[in-house]
Amino acid sequence: MIYADYNGSSPLVPAVKDYLKKRLESDLFANPNAIHSMGQKIYQGIEKCREIIAGVMGCYPDQIIFNSGASEGVSHVMHSLLEYSASEKKIIITSRIEHAVIPKALKYYQERRGFVVKYLEVDSQGVVKTESLKKLIEENKNNIVLVTVMAANNETGVIQPYKEIQKICDAHGITYFSDTTQYIGKAEFNFKESGLEFAICSGHKLGAISGSGFIIAKDPTRLHPLVFGSTQEHGHRGGTQNYLGIETLAVAIQYFNENKYRFAQLKEAKLKFEKDVQSSFPEAYVFGQNVDRLAGTSLISYPGIHSQAVQIELESQDIFVTTSAACSDNQPETSIVLKEMGINDQLGRGVIRVSFNNSYGEKEYSQLARSLKSAYNKLGKIKSY
Amino acid sequence: MIYADYNGSSPLVPAVKDYLKKRLESDLFANPNAIHSMGQKIYQGIEKCREIIAGVMGCYPDQIIFNSGASEGVSHVMHSLLEYSASEKKIIITSRIEHAVIPKALKYYQERRGFVVKYLEVDSQGVVKTESLKKLIEENKNNIVLVTVMAANNETGVIQPYKEIQKICDAHGITYFSDTTQYIGKAEFNFKESGLEFAICSGHKLGAISGSGFIIAKDPTRLHPLVFGSTQEHGHRGGTQNYLGIETLAVAIQYFNENKYRFAQLKEAKLKFEKDVQSSFPEAYVFGQNVDRLAGTSLISYPGIHSQAVQIELESQDIFVTTSAACSDNQPETSIVLKEMGINDQLGRGVIRVSFNNSYGEKEYSQLARSLKSAYNKLGKIKSY
Repeated sequence: MIYADYNGSSPLVPAVKDYLKKRLESDLFANPNAIHSMGQKIYQGIEKCREIIAGVMGCYPDQIIFNSGASEGVSHVMHSLLEYSASEKKIIITSRIEHAVIPKALKYYQERRGFVVKYLEVDSQGVVKTESLKKLIEENKNNIVLVTVMAANNETGVIQPYKEIQKICDAHGITYFSDTTQYIGKAEFNFKESGLEFAICSGHKLGAISGSGFIIAKDPTRLHPLVFGSTQEHGHRGGTQNYLGIETLAVAIQYFNENKYRFAQLKEAKLKFEKDVQSSFPEAYVFGQNVDRLAGTSLISYPGIHSQAVQIELESQDIFVTTSAACSDNQPETSIVLKEMGINDQLGRGVIRVSFNNSYGEKEYSQLARSLKSAYNKLGKIKSY
Repeated sequence: MIYADYNGSSPLVPAVKDYLKKRLESDLFANPNAIHSMGQKIYQGIEKCREIIAGVMGCYPDQIIFNSGASEGVSHVMHSLLEYSASEKKIIITSRIEHAVIPKALKYYQERRGFVVKYLEVDSQGVVKTESLKKLIEENKNNIVLVTVMAANNETGVIQPYKEIQKICDAHGITYFSDTTQYIGKAEFNFKESGLEFAICSGHKLGAISGSGFIIAKDPTRLHPLVFGSTQEHGHRGGTQNYLGIETLAVAIQYFNENKYRFAQLKEAKLKFEKDVQSSFPEAYVFGQNVDRLAGTSLISYPGIHSQAVQIELESQDIFVTTSAACSDNQPETSIVLKEMGINDQLGRGVIRVSFNNSYGEKEYSQLARSLKSAYNKLGKIKSY
């Protein structure tokens, strides 16, 4: 079995499974906010996890706010920056290749708070153009409340110039929020070095249990609670802490850190796989092939062979890929992201996404190449559109 | 070991532990929103859990919206009702014995949306007075946007007249939201029979894993997303579903349902325990003793013996109680809830809370009685205040 949907959600990584198996043998399940020693032990465990995660992420422990995952993270940061915007500035700059949570959040602030959204240009490789940002800043100089551009795209894996965008925004005193959901755990990341003001993470993207996650905030006082409650997370996020989630997050982040040296060979194996497929099928198109992408992501299309046909064919060989989007790929259309890259339906409807983590390598890519080539051979005879 | 902090957080119930141990042997961890069969299996699992929970809770599956727990539930319902309030009505009626999340949320809407909060009277047993509600409705008839009173109090366990409040609100066309966090899993509950418009639940309160929970909404179209995202939960709650949380919730709810017959004997054992302590120490005061309480909750004070001294004494015998509040009991003061009941510091500072689930019974209460009496004997010799 080859699970190839790590950009959607990662299965529990082995270290997390092992941790949980042992954890279930313990009797230490209690209210982390209680005065009794059982609660205090759990609370201290949470703080230890915060330190571990901070160490790997390159931030201070008190810059980490645990939550339920990246969608809450985005909603919380947007709430903090837009609901509590102290200025009269009304323009938000973003791109059309953001994950669904961003346009959904921005729509709310457009409709209910009168913000105006302007879009950056994206090139044919799927990279947001920083020139376009400079131009928009020039045109709307004193009226920009927020720039929000993701760190890596969930469909193509294309890495965005988030560090450069942060520098441009810093130079103009503009707040920048980068959705790092797809980046953290799939590439090396150091919060301090990134220069970012905020980062967000979903535990399930890196093999922790679902429903866990965090925000890193350079200045946590900029956050205002979205989920109300008591004094948990220094008052930034109410609710009894998801301590099992937090513990597995720390384990998964350590696992990531110990295995990050493998990204180079993962990337090499992927590029070899892509070339292999393209040498047999020159029509096969790899999106973002000329630019920097997440090591384990390939978005490939064979024009005329419908995504879903390929997906089913691969699944019959126990290989689980997705078609377009990360979260809900039931739309038999060219995705918004690909449309923004200028991709026509001929290519856009044939897309499959392969996303691995770095426990995979040449072996899995070889098997995938064999199966994909066999699928293209079979399905290419009767093109589906 | 006797864990006596179920109102704070329940350890995983045995059924959930067993479920998780088996679950970890499986390889079925995947993106529940993907088109591939692994994802679809997880998605179908989530929907099966929704049906199981609906069956026990007495609602329709599509009235359940899974989330990260009760604090999110409260914040989400408040956001839906107050941010999206269509009327000019500005008065919110509540009590001063609500869990911290309610006043925190209301403060936000007071400060930022101009709502005005009025408080219901509470009697000396800790019950919100419905007469006081009728009076406030009479005085503010056409200006009430929301009434919010909890179903059961987290500190005293006192059950509030939530069904009667719902009827009064219905008669006046006023929206009522009852925080059911402490009630669900600790008493029989049927959403349809309750007449409530909304109910909320935290999985960790009934022995599921932390970070899981749900809202039940009579009319889900009244909800507006707090956590933005894609089409998950019919668009009511974004983010990859916490499927392990949801699965354990279904297991915990079933476990609760199969064991609910035990509430009667739990209550009987508790009342016997309270009388036992009081027969040895007539000064020992049990809060809400004359009214209906959650079966496994006792809030007891011995005037002059500081809570924390008793808590430590019990802990030395491996019994884990809390002092006052459910979530954060580091305040060496009479709690807001007790103050509202007219309790003075003499009693208020001596409080310990014992909260059991229905796997406990006479045996644990006897052991607790012995230890508590021994603590009172020891500490009573040198009163701490």
